[in-house]
Amino acid sequence: MHSLGTHLIIELEKCNQNILDDKVLIETILTNAASESGAQIIGSTFHKFIPIGVTGVVSISESHLAVHTWPELSYASVDIFSCGDNFNLNECAQKIIRGFQSTKVSKMKIDRGIDNKFSNQEIS
Amino acid sequence: MHSLGTHLIIELEKCNQNILDDKVLIETILTNAASESGAQIIGSTFHKFIPIGVTGVVSISESHLAVHTWPELSYASVDIFSCGDNFNLNECAQKIIRGFQSTKVSKMKIDRGIDNKFSNQEIS
Repeated sequence: MHSLGTHLIIELEKCNQNILDDKVLIETILTNAASESGAQIIGSTFHKFIPIGVTGVVSISESHLAVHTWPELSYASVDIFSCGDNFNLNECAQKIIRGFQSTKVSKMKIDRGIDNKFSNQEIS
Repeated sequence: MHSLGTHLIIELEKCNQNILDDKVLIETILTNAASESGAQIIGSTFHKFIPIGVTGVVSISESHLAVHTWPELSYASVDIFSCGDNFNLNECAQKIIRGFQSTKVSKMKIDRGIDNKFSNQEIS
């Protein structure tokens, strides 16, 4: 295949429930993680659901980050997609994992691009 | 596992190159596809790169849509993530495929949630 980007699909369990319901803190964690890992932020939208949960997407020059939280289950889904060389996805992921205080992490790395048969996943 | 959402990872090839470089049209295609398929849009950000390419993320009550385009390669990456029952992901995907005039599509469906070993992908 002709790879054009790398996509990390991450399930974060056993997170801090208070953090997962705090829109302002989640926005800070995500935008800091992105910019400190080399991404250029070009837009973002964050939303607090009533009664519970936060969703956030960050558009970056290198592609995007997306987070959706289920505080009642101590769970957050995280996506980090990059097509740039200067953005360190794994560093960004580690900053989000630490920010959410997750102690159980499942990850899948997918190469994105042309002639993709999705045979190149790495699961950890 | 305890599934909380469904994530479609889609590679669109052989798209219309002019459409892939038209930010306004891409925003129209994505937001129409989302709302006509039952999603509630809560925010979005679209960006035109110089000299070429568009990125767009749409935050929806049910999770998110993200698109990144490489017009010079007639390729776009598409992500559709939903945790809601009223949002028809496949209908949304079909509308985007038709909107971009893609004639080569690769898809992977991933269940997202707790105790995920990522063993439940469906590739087509």
